[in-house]
Amino acid sequence: MIRPIRLGMVGGGRDAFIGGVHRIAARIDGDFTLVAGAFSSTPEKSRASGADLGIDPDRAYASFDDMAAAEAGRSDGVEAVAIVTPNHMHFPPVRAFLERGIHVICDKPLTSTLADAERLALVARASGALFVLTHNYTGYPMIRQARAMIGGGEIGAIRLVQAEYVQDWLTEDTGGKQAEWRTDPARAGAGGAIGDIGTHAYNLACFVSGLRAQALAADLQSFVPGRRVDDNAHILMRWAGGARGTIWASQVAPGNENGLRLRIYGDKGGLEWAQEDPNYLWFTPFGEPRRRITRGGAGAGDAAGAVTRIPGGHPEGYLEAFATLYREAASAIRARAAGRPVPENVLSPGIEDGLAGMRFVDACVRSSAADAAWVSLV
Amino acid sequence: MIRPIRLGMVGGGRDAFIGGVHRIAARIDGDFTLVAGAFSSTPEKSRASGADLGIDPDRAYASFDDMAAAEAGRSDGVEAVAIVTPNHMHFPPVRAFLERGIHVICDKPLTSTLADAERLALVARASGALFVLTHNYTGYPMIRQARAMIGGGEIGAIRLVQAEYVQDWLTEDTGGKQAEWRTDPARAGAGGAIGDIGTHAYNLACFVSGLRAQALAADLQSFVPGRRVDDNAHILMRWAGGARGTIWASQVAPGNENGLRLRIYGDKGGLEWAQEDPNYLWFTPFGEPRRRITRGGAGAGDAAGAVTRIPGGHPEGYLEAFATLYREAASAIRARAAGRPVPENVLSPGIEDGLAGMRFVDACVRSSAADAAWVSLV
Amino acid sequence: MIRPIRLGMVGGGRDAFIGGVHRIAARIDGDFTLVAGAFSSTPEKSRASGADLGIDPDRAYASFDDMAAAEAGRSDGVEAVAIVTPNHMHFPPVRAFLERGIHVICDKPLTSTLADAERLALVARASGALFVLTHNYTGYPMIRQARAMIGGGEIGAIRLVQAEYVQDWLTEDTGGKQAEWRTDPARAGAGGAIGDIGTHAYNLACFVSGLRAQALAADLQSFVPGRRVDDNAHILMRWAGGARGTIWASQVAPGNENGLRLRIYGDKGGLEWAQEDPNYLWFTPFGEPRRRITRGGAGAGDAAGAVTRIPGGHPEGYLEAFATLYREAASAIRARAAGRPVPENVLSPGIEDGLAGMRFVDACVRSSAADAAWVSLV
Amino acid sequence: MIRPIRLGMVGGGRDAFIGGVHRIAARIDGDFTLVAGAFSSTPEKSRASGADLGIDPDRAYASFDDMAAAEAGRSDGVEAVAIVTPNHMHFPPVRAFLERGIHVICDKPLTSTLADAERLALVARASGALFVLTHNYTGYPMIRQARAMIGGGEIGAIRLVQAEYVQDWLTEDTGGKQAEWRTDPARAGAGGAIGDIGTHAYNLACFVSGLRAQALAADLQSFVPGRRVDDNAHILMRWAGGARGTIWASQVAPGNENGLRLRIYGDKGGLEWAQEDPNYLWFTPFGEPRRRITRGGAGAGDAAGAVTRIPGGHPEGYLEAFATLYREAASAIRARAAGRPVPENVLSPGIEDGLAGMRFVDACVRSSAADAAWVSLV
Repeated sequence: MIRPIRLGMVGGGRDAFIGGVHRIAARIDGDFTLVAGAFSSTPEKSRASGADLGIDPDRAYASFDDMAAAEAGRSDGVEAVAIVTPNHMHFPPVRAFLERGIHVICDKPLTSTLADAERLALVARASGALFVLTHNYTGYPMIRQARAMIGGGEIGAIRLVQAEYVQDWLTEDTGGKQAEWRTDPARAGAGGAIGDIGTHAYNLACFVSGLRAQALAADLQSFVPGRRVDDNAHILMRWAGGARGTIWASQVAPGNENGLRLRIYGDKGGLEWAQEDPNYLWFTPFGEPRRRITRGGAGAGDAAGAVTRIPGGHPEGYLEAFATLYREAASAIRARAAGRPVPENVLSPGIEDGLAGMRFVDACVRSSAADAAWVSLV
Repeated sequence: MIRPIRLGMVGGGRDAFIGGVHRIAARIDGDFTLVAGAFSSTPEKSRASGADLGIDPDRAYASFDDMAAAEAGRSDGVEAVAIVTPNHMHFPPVRAFLERGIHVICDKPLTSTLADAERLALVARASGALFVLTHNYTGYPMIRQARAMIGGGEIGAIRLVQAEYVQDWLTEDTGGKQAEWRTDPARAGAGGAIGDIGTHAYNLACFVSGLRAQALAADLQSFVPGRRVDDNAHILMRWAGGARGTIWASQVAPGNENGLRLRIYGDKGGLEWAQEDPNYLWFTPFGEPRRRITRGGAGAGDAAGAVTRIPGGHPEGYLEAFATLYREAASAIRARAAGRPVPENVLSPGIEDGLAGMRFVDACVRSSAADAAWVSLV
Repeated sequence: MIRPIRLGMVGGGRDAFIGGVHRIAARIDGDFTLVAGAFSSTPEKSRASGADLGIDPDRAYASFDDMAAAEAGRSDGVEAVAIVTPNHMHFPPVRAFLERGIHVICDKPLTSTLADAERLALVARASGALFVLTHNYTGYPMIRQARAMIGGGEIGAIRLVQAEYVQDWLTEDTGGKQAEWRTDPARAGAGGAIGDIGTHAYNLACFVSGLRAQALAADLQSFVPGRRVDDNAHILMRWAGGARGTIWASQVAPGNENGLRLRIYGDKGGLEWAQEDPNYLWFTPFGEPRRRITRGGAGAGDAAGAVTRIPGGHPEGYLEAFATLYREAASAIRARAAGRPVPENVLSPGIEDGLAGMRFVDACVRSSAADAAWVSLV
Repeated sequence: MIRPIRLGMVGGGRDAFIGGVHRIAARIDGDFTLVAGAFSSTPEKSRASGADLGIDPDRAYASFDDMAAAEAGRSDGVEAVAIVTPNHMHFPPVRAFLERGIHVICDKPLTSTLADAERLALVARASGALFVLTHNYTGYPMIRQARAMIGGGEIGAIRLVQAEYVQDWLTEDTGGKQAEWRTDPARAGAGGAIGDIGTHAYNLACFVSGLRAQALAADLQSFVPGRRVDDNAHILMRWAGGARGTIWASQVAPGNENGLRLRIYGDKGGLEWAQEDPNYLWFTPFGEPRRRITRGGAGAGDAAGAVTRIPGGHPEGYLEAFATLYREAASAIRARAAGRPVPENVLSPGIEDGLAGMRFVDACVRSSAADAAWVSLV
């Protein structure tokens, strides 16, 4: 038995959404135990949220600064901290913890501005602590399968990468808390849909294809009157090695909930995957019938197997994929603690992925401002 | 914050399958903490498994008898115990714990024989402790949605109930541990496929339809040479109120992993659901286009919402449905501890469902032995 | 170029449904030209229908008897006739034409009574003319593919045959013409759903599997008050060689239009097909990912190719499958005219299939009357 | 009964593909009879093809010029002609027949060059004869349904139009006849994939949305070494009224046969359709469960009903949709012959659509040559 890692959390108080997801993800495999938090920028709310969660009142802090200082000084202080605040509030706490050598698991996108992201990257590279960015879709077993198949040459040289992340929840102007900060440039950043979900699509395309993007031409829109950030984006992509493709991110396409879809085609075959049906991967070798590879089933290889918990036909979902990032973070943290290198099969996104995502957002915004002119990503 | 309930486990040692599922399910919502276990009938293996799981060595018992006696005597003893042994080893530990007033969460089917089931029902009814049977598919949000819609009259008077649970893992004779005990009548019971998965299909049909079965005619087969229990069953069903239907259970249908499917039609509409795509419920009001109701999405009502953790389009899966039974067990246990009645929205199956399942298996076996003669279930 | 065959029609006047389908099917491949008909038992209606169809007024007959006599006497008389009347009116015209050596293409089921079917079989066997029964679903390319794959051993020895044909159009009592005669035992026969669509499911199961049915146990229902024939049937099947299965036919399952589905599993793999998505055949070799074979696409073999008109991805439908029976009838008629044997690749159902279908209906009715007792089919 | 229209054909000899499709389409509804043709530019082949088709040898012409002259002089000459030659051979015969007052049904794209298209448009506008361009996908009932729903405001103001037509048959260099001329700029035109299938996607987007395109930015690729035209295209679209979208056309995406897909979203709902499953239309009203409207089924309205031949659940396919253009052409031709206006429900594409398609191709090629610069379409 391996002792659970002591985890803290910044953000995630009452009414928050993603904090609860992180907590479940941290629990599923039993690798973490939540012991401290600065759950809200309102001290009373932080305390109340801590009480809800069974946290020792002394460790439900009024601010992340207090928390970083206090926990760093405890012999039983947090070993890792989850940052689940709105985008503009990622940078300060991440820096505070990394600088104290406390590992960080941070929600995406990395920051609200590219400048912050670049500063944070310097901090992270200089830190002895680990940094994990929860581009959680990379945790799906069939995504791992696709990545491994492409790496193994099963679809040949990649020609086409089509990624989309399509939602409908901002089709109309909602008054909700989630919508409010995500459409506020000061808190979300210059990118709306492109930052919130476009970065996921871009990250996943990179993760699975193994390609580096070279340039993009983006046409961003804000369809809902009064909205201050984009709620839809169409992007032409050029990838290293000559592959091409598009990315479509939208929050105004009725009937789409979390329609993250990836289609990649090479000169020997293709792979197709959709997040809402995540246990299936379609493999289309050229000139043969298409095949459905299932998580835990025939055709699933080691890369998928390593992050699979239950047999095929018993679906795993979003929370399990998210939990895989926590499990891999635990694996990396324990390796680090033992003086071992991070295991090769830990594939969770890190600071460079976060920085790449912010460069992508920045490039989209600049391209769109220039009427979809090409902007280099290299 | 509510203190986690102290949980024990009988079975679930190294190499076991379902024990691990129960542990994850118990962790997901944070309502339980595993503190003791008799993880194997081999004492050394129980200790080793306990060590893997971080259990105090004093509480990794050599037998369930030792465990029941010892835990009942501790002030910090287990409040509930999960029984995850093979079918023939359900009855003894369940009785041991229930008789000591310790709540039981037991895997299905209830027992390996109807006689045991009936004896166990007497024990459970007489006990002050709670008994939950993990017919885990009842925990899916869209199953709750279907049940509520039928209860609300949305498909009218039910005419047809079609249930099937189709697998392929026993298509050939495997040498695996799971296959071994599940095809051994002494351990699994007289029913093979019918006990292992047919009971799930039957339970789910009852749970969703709200109907009571009246009679059945079953034709059981054992296709694989040398197999001592059925690996396929076709059953004609007659339900109270005049509804009819079939149940098909199979473990020898290549290409099917856990194909549990339910289709129910009334005089006003129908509902269709498949376990491998559990976040969708198809509603087919007569004379209107069919509609896809999604977990967490438009059209999902309170019954589904009560057991939904994350937004629509982010799939929940098997483990979350299983966890819902644990969450509801926790809710019931806490109510009981507080002297309150079990909340109405706790819908987890209990001893009567377990007994009904065993009567179903028994009736199938008797009917098939009589060349598919009708056998009454009332 | 081969001269089109002169075709007559009995039935199919104004307001009829299936007659129009036969006419399109006869036109698609250009093998027939409609030149005569007794389109209605009402002479004026027959004449008017003939005029609609551009038939010479002299050849729009007042009765099939007149037509048979007159056409047999013309040097340019019909070479073949399509019989598209209600079931009870199949026998008299079929006999009239067969006895005059005119080939017959007859809608299914063969007759309204088993006695008629047996008498008709004697006539057909004695006739030099050909008899084709339009179990049109046998004309789908992917059905031919499935049949060829099974014949070639690709799924091994068959264990399971699951067939269903599910509709909803009789969920309520309609006043329509189609519903009227199809629910009248005097015209439709003793079987309602079982005769109208159950025979299709049974025929297709036989056609694809290559198996002969040995016995069945049927539970028929008539859910709609006042209905005089079954509108739903559940049937346990036993097939030669030990295969088992079920057939479900229903006209009262809301949300189902023409849900004819076939799933066949052997000891090496399975095949799954659904009529509403007819261009796909799912092949599930045991232990490998499932594959989707498409009409005209990779994996489709010669048997499918022989009845495929256009490339993969351009769907063919019901009318094309129906037309294939006409094309094969033309091929057989021309072979017969030339003194050649009927080509081996003509697979259209004939008189023995029609007789088998009527024996199936009769057995279902008798079994159900005996409370789902087993009735032999051999 | 209405007399069949006398039809001629230019192209479509032995080995041709699309000519056979046109002939079946012309036959399905019985509105045309093929009586003449210049089936090949090789006289012997034209004669042989005519013989195959049962054409009077005098009317199997050595050239379209001969045919136009001879048929125009016959009292029983062709009333309409189908032009099914490669793109660069559309213009000369279309002009020849239109100038003689013979109606033309022409395959797409209109011509191989924009200059030809503009000249042809002048000819067609000046002619008293009708011109129909077989953008055959507009004939699908569910496409008509989508168009009517959008026209009726059911999805509100359109924001997004996503169209794609994805194939895989040119993934590798084939030596086939179809591939040869379609990748030869002299015969196919400057656009490869964009002309062959991109024009279909564009036409369908216009037809269904009712919107006019304003500008596009296209990035064309030719992935296969040595290929002289594009085999893949990504296009950003701007539509009148502020709608945006993309068009993707590809012939190198393994696993895609004829993946023509259309997704259109407005501020009240969306519609989704895929050509390979053409009998379904998905309607996604915002905030409600998605609905599947079926051809011939509940929810299908008059526009779909007008071009539907058989009941719901019995799939119609590509040939029926193609036939609808012929049926509508017949309706228009008869109206013209009778001095009546072309009926309002005749929606077949005509010369302006053909010209728009060529402008689209030209704009794509120019945009791509300018590194995906915006090119106006107005």
